[in-house]
Amino acid sequence: MSKPAVILLSGGLDSATSAAIARSQGFELYALSLDYGQRHRGELEAAQRVGEQLGVKRQVTLQIDLRAFGASALTADIDVPKSRSVEQMHSGIPITYVPARNTVFLSLALGYAETLSAADIFIGVNAVDYSGYPDCRPEYIEAFERMANLATKASVEGRLKFTIHAPLVALTKAEIIRRGVELGVDYGLTRSCYDPDPSGAACGACDACTLRLAGFTEAGLVDPAPYRPGTMNHS
Amino acid sequence: MSKPAVILLSGGLDSATSAAIARSQGFELYALSLDYGQRHRGELEAAQRVGEQLGVKRQVTLQIDLRAFGASALTADIDVPKSRSVEQMHSGIPITYVPARNTVFLSLALGYAETLSAADIFIGVNAVDYSGYPDCRPEYIEAFERMANLATKASVEGRLKFTIHAPLVALTKAEIIRRGVELGVDYGLTRSCYDPDPSGAACGACDACTLRLAGFTEAGLVDPAPYRPGTMNHS
Repeated sequence: MSKPAVILLSGGLDSATSAAIARSQGFELYALSLDYGQRHRGELEAAQRVGEQLGVKRQVTLQIDLRAFGASALTADIDVPKSRSVEQMHSGIPITYVPARNTVFLSLALGYAETLSAADIFIGVNAVDYSGYPDCRPEYIEAFERMANLATKASVEGRLKFTIHAPLVALTKAEIIRRGVELGVDYGLTRSCYDPDPSGAACGACDACTLRLAGFTEAGLVDPAPYRPGTMNHS
Repeated sequence: MSKPAVILLSGGLDSATSAAIARSQGFELYALSLDYGQRHRGELEAAQRVGEQLGVKRQVTLQIDLRAFGASALTADIDVPKSRSVEQMHSGIPITYVPARNTVFLSLALGYAETLSAADIFIGVNAVDYSGYPDCRPEYIEAFERMANLATKASVEGRLKFTIHAPLVALTKAEIIRRGVELGVDYGLTRSCYDPDPSGAACGACDACTLRLAGFTEAGLVDPAPYRPGTMNHS
C-alpha cells in the first residue's frame, strides 16, 4: 500500500512538478489548495485540473481570506510589476510577497497530514528563482519541519515523524520544467501569471510569466499554456 | 507611542488574560480571532465582547473551515467527554485536540503581525492544565518563534524580530484567574465550555468547564459566567 502525502497544489508550474515528483516516489497524493483571496483565481481551477491529471486521491480547497490583513500585490488592489528582468526580480523581496504565506500553507498542510496520518508534505518552493522570498529557503523549511515535529499529537506520541519535502528548492526553472516533462506533467494545465486576462490567458510580462517563459526557453521548449496575443512565447 | 501586538483572542478565559497582560505591558492590541468551524460558536461572540472591554485597536475574525480535515471533537460531530476529573484529563492527549491548531493560529497571527509591523504576538497557551496538548508547551513555542524569524520579509530584512509571548504557559488556572482579576478582566464575558446550551450557558461538566470551575474554586472566587441550572459553580 502506498503511503499518503499531502501536496500543496497552487495550480502553478512549480507545485505541479513537486506533486509529480511525490507521485514518482510512490506516494498517494492528498492535494491541498488554498483560496486566500488571490487575484488570479484561475490558479484554483488550474489546481483542480492538475490534480485530476495527476490522479490525486482527494483534493481539498480551503478558503481563508488573507485580504483581511492587506499588504500584497497578489491579494490587494495594487499594481503587479511588469516587464522586469530576472535580475531586477532578484534584487530584494518582491511586493508580490504575501505575509507568512508559506507558513500559513504549511501549517494547514500539517493539520491535514496529521488527520490523514501522513508523515510527508510536499511544497514546490524554489530558492533559485524566488531568492527574494524568505519562506522559500532551505533553512526556513528545516525550521518549519523541526517545529512541526514538536507541534502535533502524532509526532509527540511517536506515531509520525514529519518530513517537509521541497524537491525543487535548488533547481533552476529550466531544470524544474525538464523534470516535470519527464514525469508527464501537462504544463498546459498550469497557470502562473499574476495578472491573467478574463479568459485566463497569461500577460507574459509579470515576474511569474517572465521567469516561466525564460525557463521554457532555457529548456528548449515552448510553454503550452495560453498567452495573450502578441506575447513573446519563446521557442 | 505604544507598540502594536497581535493577540490571539478566542473568547476563553486564558486568551482574555493573555491579552490583558499584553495591555498591562503597554502594547496596543490588534486582536485576531479564528472562526474554524468550532461547535461552540459562542466563543466568537465572547471574543468580540472581551476585545471591546480590553479596548483593542482593531479586531479581525478570519474564517477558515478546519472541518474540511475532520477528526476533532471540537469541530466534528463526535461526543465531547463529560465529568472527567482533572487527573483523567491529564492522561494522554484529549480527543478535543484540533490538529495543528496553534500552529495554524500562530501562522495567521504572524502574517497579520508582519502586515502591521508588529514584532509581538501573544497566545494564551498553558502547559499546566493542557499538558496533553503538544502545541501548548514552551519548546513548541520556542521552535515556532525560531521558524517565524526565518519566515518573513520583515525579520529577514532585520526590521522585526518576532517574539511569541505565552505569558500563561507556566501558570495554574487559579494563578491565571487571580492575575486576570488584578488586571480587570471581566470573566463574565468569557466562555470556555465545549458544549454550551443554546442560550450560551456552560455545561459545567466538559473538560474546559471542569478546569475552569476548579480554578475559580482554588482562587477562592465564583465564576461570573453563566452555567446551566443545577451546575455546581463552586464558591
